Amino acid sequence: MKDQDFSEQCQSSHNVFAGKMLKVYRDEVILPNGHRSTREYIIHPGAVVAIPWLADGRLVLERQYRYSVRQEFLELPAGKLTPGEDPLAAMQRELLEETGYVANRWHRLCRLHPCIGYANEEMTLYLAQDLTLTKQNLDEDELLEVVEMSLDEAMRAIQSGLITDAKTMVGLFWAEKWARGEWVLEG
Amino acid sequence: MKDQDFSEQCQSSHNVFAGKMLKVYRDEVILPNGHRSTREYIIHPGAVVAIPWLADGRLVLERQYRYSVRQEFLELPAGKLTPGEDPLAAMQRELLEETGYVANRWHRLCRLHPCIGYANEEMTLYLAQDLTLTKQNLDEDELLEVVEMSLDEAMRAIQSGLITDAKTMVGLFWAEKWARGEWVLEG
Repeated sequence: MKDQDFSEQCQSSHNVFAGKMLKVYRDEVILPNGHRSTREYIIHPGAVVAIPWLADGRLVLERQYRYSVRQEFLELPAGKLTPGEDPLAAMQRELLEETGYVANRWHRLCRLHPCIGYANEEMTLYLAQDLTLTKQNLDEDELLEVVEMSLDEAMRAIQSGLITDAKTMVGLFWAEKWARGEWVLEG
Repeated sequence: MKDQDFSEQCQSSHNVFAGKMLKVYRDEVILPNGHRSTREYIIHPGAVVAIPWLADGRLVLERQYRYSVRQEFLELPAGKLTPGEDPLAAMQRELLEETGYVANRWHRLCRLHPCIGYANEEMTLYLAQDLTLTKQNLDEDELLEVVEMSLDEAMRAIQSGLITDAKTMVGLFWAEKWARGEWVLEG
């Protein structure tokens, strides 16, 4: 038995908002049942997130204010791709700028889609090891604090509700799978 | 030592796009260093997601097409709040409509923020147990397939890259913590 095809066919696509950061599209689509509908969504260049794992077992996180939610978050280092940029190169650049760390060993762990209801954003998650501290190089208006903590502390911060950023939760859960030897890295 | 305050002060706020689904705002803000900047973001009413746990140990997921990413996803049941709606009531409504299941036991597990870079969306994650199958009640244009699988199968689907939806990954990782007795439910 073949699975039913739920795909929706684009009839027309319009860029209805073009801001400095956000590009919003509204498409007319045809549903599998022949009905017409409208879909609004954000076009995103993609993003990267890393679990920087220090030799002493601690992880490198960041405390950062997120205006959209009007609160601070404890997050793994992450960043947006510039269109066409190689994800690993982007993650290496972001890690250096935001934390000052350079990693000599990188593993790609998985892809994740943070917001499938209204954005095409795809993130790639990396494990970064063999870290050397050089010099943080923040943009003048990029304000954040580097926070180093053990995996156990970070997992407790998820359990207690202190960490609620989805990409960070996924990254830490993945890191625990790896640390326990339950999920093995390829390559 | 007091932590440095990174909060950004709103100077003015404008609704720059008001679609059927998406509301986009552009705010002028003052950064902690006194500089001015602009923030664009989506105002979202909030959402809910559930891990429906059957008596035989299988979980209830859904196969659904997501136009924004132009692909199908295997997801936990979820939905958007209508403004002012109680999250648990919303989750009970969505679970019944989408899967036909009614749960007699509910536990609130955690909050998560899927998209802190450009949306204020907050999700609440629930564990739903003691399930009874009644009748699915999909909107005419809501097309999805209910998929039941064990936690082990679902975890392998994360590991292999089949499941990439962030809210579903967080829900399944949380479910495994609970199933192993590592994280205990309150109340």
